[in-house]
Amino acid sequence: MRSHVADARVGRLATVGAGGQPHIVPCCFALDGNAVYSAVDGKPKSTRALRRLENIRANPRSTLLVDFYDDDWEALWWVRVDANARVVSSDDEARVEFDRAVELLRDKYEQYRAEVPAGPVVALDIVQWRGWP
Amino acid sequence: MRSHVADARVGRLATVGAGGQPHIVPCCFALDGNAVYSAVDGKPKSTRALRRLENIRANPRSTLLVDFYDDDWEALWWVRVDANARVVSSDDEARVEFDRAVELLRDKYEQYRAEVPAGPVVALDIVQWRGWP
Repeated sequence: MRSHVADARVGRLATVGAGGQPHIVPCCFALDGNAVYSAVDGKPKSTRALRRLENIRANPRSTLLVDFYDDDWEALWWVRVDANARVVSSDDEARVEFDRAVELLRDKYEQYRAEVPAGPVVALDIVQWRGWP
Repeated sequence: MRSHVADARVGRLATVGAGGQPHIVPCCFALDGNAVYSAVDGKPKSTRALRRLENIRANPRSTLLVDFYDDDWEALWWVRVDANARVVSSDDEARVEFDRAVELLRDKYEQYRAEVPAGPVVALDIVQWRGWP
């Protein structure tokens, strides 16, 4: 399960908003031990990024799905991590963790080497791994 | 946005479980007007299918994300529909809707023509469409 998650170029992150409305965004991320980091970058515009952060601040429960789809259903797989999410900002005591997360993201994605994500970073502290099949 | 959703082979469906824990599954689906249908089939095993149904019965709020990922970030797009989910069973008054959903799924996926999904069907009544970019 770890290698599937570590190698995936994209995952889908679900959070929960006001009134129990779930929210999903596709996101790029890096796995580091038992944490997953993603960054709010220039590409998703305002509401998308803000909703995710607002949701996490109100309810840290989140889940990241990494899966493979193909019309050959014998080849399908998914890994899902349930996690507690935190917003890691660049301008407070979390600076060390923020810098570490950005470094991991730049190692994985050349786009982040060309343009450093402005942040903030979302950290997912994994509490459960599930996989199929 | 409609054609992106109608043509997509897979989406990711988020529901919310007890204690506000979000849950995501990849799912095959068919769009029909302002409704999306997916079926619980043989491929996902028990817990996965049951969690989704249990969540929906307790909280119908759900969301389906259809997106395209490529390492060329200029090519990315996503469409997200927020919806109220219902479980449509084959053995009650919803039989007409159940049969219609299965027919749509069989039209779209040859796998469902080879083996009819046993059900139940999940119907998503769309309340909001969002897309990016």
